Amino acid sequence: MQTARDLARPSARPNRVRPDGEPGARGGVDRLAALAAQCRPEWSLPGEFYSEDAIYRADLDRIWRRGWLFAGHTCEIPKPGDYFTLQVDADSLVVVRGDDGTIRGLHNVCRHRGSLICSEAAGHSKKLVCPYHQWTYGLDGSLLACRGMADTMDKSEFHLKQVHVRELEGLIYLSLAEVPPDFDGASQQISPLARPQGFSKAKVAKAVDYLVKANWKLIWENNRECYHCNVNHPQYIKANFDHYNADDTTPRIQEEISAALKRSEQRRAAAGLAATHKGTGMTTFPDADNNIWYSANRTPLVDGYVTESIDGKAVAPLMGDYKDTEVDTLRMRSLPNFWNHSSCDHGVSTRLLPAGPQLTSVRVSWLVDAQAVEGRDYDLAKLLPFWQMTSEQDWVICERQQRGVNSSAYTPGPYSPYKEYNVDGFVRWYLKSLVAGGAK
Amino acid sequence: MQTARDLARPSARPNRVRPDGEPGARGGVDRLAALAAQCRPEWSLPGEFYSEDAIYRADLDRIWRRGWLFAGHTCEIPKPGDYFTLQVDADSLVVVRGDDGTIRGLHNVCRHRGSLICSEAAGHSKKLVCPYHQWTYGLDGSLLACRGMADTMDKSEFHLKQVHVRELEGLIYLSLAEVPPDFDGASQQISPLARPQGFSKAKVAKAVDYLVKANWKLIWENNRECYHCNVNHPQYIKANFDHYNADDTTPRIQEEISAALKRSEQRRAAAGLAATHKGTGMTTFPDADNNIWYSANRTPLVDGYVTESIDGKAVAPLMGDYKDTEVDTLRMRSLPNFWNHSSCDHGVSTRLLPAGPQLTSVRVSWLVDAQAVEGRDYDLAKLLPFWQMTSEQDWVICERQQRGVNSSAYTPGPYSPYKEYNVDGFVRWYLKSLVAGGAK
Amino acid sequence: MQTARDLARPSARPNRVRPDGEPGARGGVDRLAALAAQCRPEWSLPGEFYSEDAIYRADLDRIWRRGWLFAGHTCEIPKPGDYFTLQVDADSLVVVRGDDGTIRGLHNVCRHRGSLICSEAAGHSKKLVCPYHQWTYGLDGSLLACRGMADTMDKSEFHLKQVHVRELEGLIYLSLAEVPPDFDGASQQISPLARPQGFSKAKVAKAVDYLVKANWKLIWENNRECYHCNVNHPQYIKANFDHYNADDTTPRIQEEISAALKRSEQRRAAAGLAATHKGTGMTTFPDADNNIWYSANRTPLVDGYVTESIDGKAVAPLMGDYKDTEVDTLRMRSLPNFWNHSSCDHGVSTRLLPAGPQLTSVRVSWLVDAQAVEGRDYDLAKLLPFWQMTSEQDWVICERQQRGVNSSAYTPGPYSPYKEYNVDGFVRWYLKSLVAGGAK
Repeated sequence: MQTARDLARPSARPNRVRPDGEPGARGGVDRLAALAAQCRPEWSLPGEFYSEDAIYRADLDRIWRRGWLFAGHTCEIPKPGDYFTLQVDADSLVVVRGDDGTIRGLHNVCRHRGSLICSEAAGHSKKLVCPYHQWTYGLDGSLLACRGMADTMDKSEFHLKQVHVRELEGLIYLSLAEVPPDFDGASQQISPLARPQGFSKAKVAKAVDYLVKANWKLIWENNRECYHCNVNHPQYIKANFDHYNADDTTPRIQEEISAALKRSEQRRAAAGLAATHKGTGMTTFPDADNNIWYSANRTPLVDGYVTESIDGKAVAPLMGDYKDTEVDTLRMRSLPNFWNHSSCDHGVSTRLLPAGPQLTSVRVSWLVDAQAVEGRDYDLAKLLPFWQMTSEQDWVICERQQRGVNSSAYTPGPYSPYKEYNVDGFVRWYLKSLVAGGAK
Repeated sequence: MQTARDLARPSARPNRVRPDGEPGARGGVDRLAALAAQCRPEWSLPGEFYSEDAIYRADLDRIWRRGWLFAGHTCEIPKPGDYFTLQVDADSLVVVRGDDGTIRGLHNVCRHRGSLICSEAAGHSKKLVCPYHQWTYGLDGSLLACRGMADTMDKSEFHLKQVHVRELEGLIYLSLAEVPPDFDGASQQISPLARPQGFSKAKVAKAVDYLVKANWKLIWENNRECYHCNVNHPQYIKANFDHYNADDTTPRIQEEISAALKRSEQRRAAAGLAATHKGTGMTTFPDADNNIWYSANRTPLVDGYVTESIDGKAVAPLMGDYKDTEVDTLRMRSLPNFWNHSSCDHGVSTRLLPAGPQLTSVRVSWLVDAQAVEGRDYDLAKLLPFWQMTSEQDWVICERQQRGVNSSAYTPGPYSPYKEYNVDGFVRWYLKSLVAGGAK
Repeated sequence: MQTARDLARPSARPNRVRPDGEPGARGGVDRLAALAAQCRPEWSLPGEFYSEDAIYRADLDRIWRRGWLFAGHTCEIPKPGDYFTLQVDADSLVVVRGDDGTIRGLHNVCRHRGSLICSEAAGHSKKLVCPYHQWTYGLDGSLLACRGMADTMDKSEFHLKQVHVRELEGLIYLSLAEVPPDFDGASQQISPLARPQGFSKAKVAKAVDYLVKANWKLIWENNRECYHCNVNHPQYIKANFDHYNADDTTPRIQEEISAALKRSEQRRAAAGLAATHKGTGMTTFPDADNNIWYSANRTPLVDGYVTESIDGKAVAPLMGDYKDTEVDTLRMRSLPNFWNHSSCDHGVSTRLLPAGPQLTSVRVSWLVDAQAVEGRDYDLAKLLPFWQMTSEQDWVICERQQRGVNSSAYTPGPYSPYKEYNVDGFVRWYLKSLVAGGAK
């Protein structure tokens, strides 16, 4: 296995630490590469990775502004002129559907004197008009009017700065990079599994925003294992198998999983909805060695659960192409900021956005079929609790861990080879991305 | 026209950036001078000028602690022993009228162990007594008593540190500099216009404090143009002409202004109250080339408006030497922290004080004749709204712009030659002051 | 007298300031030593000592993490499994009584991935179980179970990190240092005086937590003189003599003190409770020259006061070994974070913990005999006010001083030789400790 120590030596050049202690050296091995090289494989990261401002800034520069970020759902902006905003640290962005139906991502910053253009979380507008001096942009970001400016001004030089956008079966992805990484691999892997879920024909029944006092990586590390589930997620573990791992799956549990898989395969082979993750425990993700930052799979629920609800019963009408409730659970995730669990009747998307070295803005959104009517077809009191409780349980955990790793007495500890292989995978992906980002 | 690029080369020495990146080099060209040299003339400033701590510190050292700051009104402290306090970033100051009637400015910091002496925003006291150990100072700052200290202590070495003070027709100015810049020019220009307003015989009917989440320069840039007025200030533009500029003044508007000026001149020639600003749009201020940081002018209101109130009707008795309501509007401003609009019946002073890189403490004060009685002669519900609404509209704008310029995607944009010449003037004054301050 | 200037030259090496301006040089004279060398003896400290982050970090490293910290009282955790937590800046600690009755101090940070283990301020537990993945530690910090980890993992390498603990007559002290300083001197001096107070047979009747917006050193400097008492502590000075000093003790006061001492000596000679501090004013503490960071003494109250209560009457039953109310007042203090005043019926402990350059967490605890019953034997409305008012008066003072020393106009001032000798002693102890800590 390639180790973090290996990762830190992308070239034959000697491993020099910059004397000024600043990250950001280009074309060489920088201070962060040196720090990464000191990280012990299969052990947790040193404390500064979760609190130091310089490392947080590097995370933004090298990961958040280079990769693909989940922004929201196409169904949130169904009509031309519909938009929503989001904020990646200090960078405000607007995601808007154009007159041509195309979704675009624009920096929400006027090219005149830098005012925010859209102040609301979401809205509808025929044009994007800066509230300061009414510079007026088309929904594609082109500057249409700037009354009062010199006639000689070339409007074409003042488009709103655009970011890359991809739509993926109803999910909207952005990249703030000039040259974003490849998206086709993600698309090819996720699309076939996500398509039947019908996110493009869905609606957001409810979104809840959290400001979690923890570094974004702690939230991911928490997400990448179910070692903590038995005690912390009493609701979650009744519906799922992924807290069982190689070390503690009993013959009885293995039998239950096999039975669930068998049901799944028999019913769904034709429809292409059969489970793709067939082991106990969590599917392997991410794959640092091959820089695989996305994944999707379908995995069986416990017998008696057709969805991730408190009692396992459906809490909304069938979604997408589903004909009955026996579709197991679709799970998707992409780094650095998205995961989703979806069952026959609803899907739940979690979006992370960095807000500081020890602060992460998290939105959890519940999606149901667009035709479903609240009160008649679904009830928030039944739709929300499973993931609201599970999410909030995790935020408490992450904030408690943040306080602990801030201690001068904190030192890295070892990961469980049975239960935390994915945490190690995440850490290796992170360090590799961080070092590679510095070398570009 | 001298450009920002020119400004940054005050000497023949090569333009060296200090390797440690710190501002504050004395006697040479420092990092900030290098940054200033990169600012494109007639374009907005780069983002770091509005958020970086080192630049904010330099603003304090080179501008706020060198120039003349508006502190308040002489009528706020009419009697010996009356005082008020104010805070310039972390520097607390007390402005107090002495037994001899003279107004003095003192650092509000005990010479013993540094406690604040006056904790209240304003008050009255025969002496300035430190609440910690009762070191007792005269109203002139001289140490009178320090019971408990060694008899050999020379009290004359422990005067409260004094700052320079000037009174200008009822306005109080302070300078924290050892050697403050010339004040006579300001005095000579402003006095004749301000004298009839009678601020020294006025009272503060109401003061409202705001903590605006924006760098102080954004607030000034907002003040230095009325390009934003049409949409953002519906009340203001009904009373004033200054949102019209060279590019959009129609013949009808020009005719209205000419008529207003004619009325003004006919009535006021004898009394010396005739309008001094006769164009449309804003008077030109500041004048960076000649380091003119102060200005005053009288300018006509729209026909039907005798004052800046919602309906244009007087909202308080005549002030000062005015004999009737036909006195147009007096406007004054001084950098880095003051502007005032005054009509026949009331004046409104706005005072800025820096409270952080992205935080400015603003006080707006409404003044009326000292003899006016609330409820009988004026009503706050009629006196306040015009400037309270206009001010608060601006704070929203400034906070929105701050959020925008914090984005990593913000880049400077061009100023309108018709409407933002004064913003460019302000920016050039600022950069020139910043660079000059570093060379001293 | 050795001066601060002397202190700063622990070796013959030239006094070099590190070019990077960072504290923390080992084995030589560092920037802080150079700063300390510039501090004028018998004058207050320069402002940066109360606000600069680098100095605060050095305070933590060189003083707080090297010395002995008062943590709490043994009576707070009477039974095996009882624990309480405390936080020294970002370092969370748990103080727990083991199955063997021994009190231990442990870093409250799981050795797995760094989560806090105990989240509550206090509690009871048979084991210390990390809430994240249930790694389970004994009350001595040994790792007992970590279900899910590799079988090959050597648990003995994952004890919770332990800190040094000493019990001193019912007081619990911690040291976060690898090799803590000597404790025996403190024990020998304090024990005989503290033993009769009976803290080990007491209970905490009430604890009040404050977050004081002041550097911890300002709080100590306030504590080390009663120069400020006359005006600021009207309740305190009725009961005590220590606001009188060499310069202002009248013959009548001296007579009162002598009479009080005489009564004390006559009654208590046999019982060993006679006053040990016989002068007016405060006893001398600390002793920087000999690095004496602890002290205790017994000192008479004003005639008519048997305890530090508003009216001088007892507010709770007799404590410890006391047979009647005539036991004067026991005073103890230890640097950097503890003082206590105790009379016949109750004791009051004050514990400081640093929470930022300008923020200190303070807990004031009132102790009474363990058998006393609230409502029957004591009433909080009578027990608390004396020290609650006195404490809160001091926090106001300290916060006001913090604001003053933050001013760029603040410069150090002279201490009174009569009334502030102990403040100077504290400052010399502080600078000496700071410099010595950097040389280790």
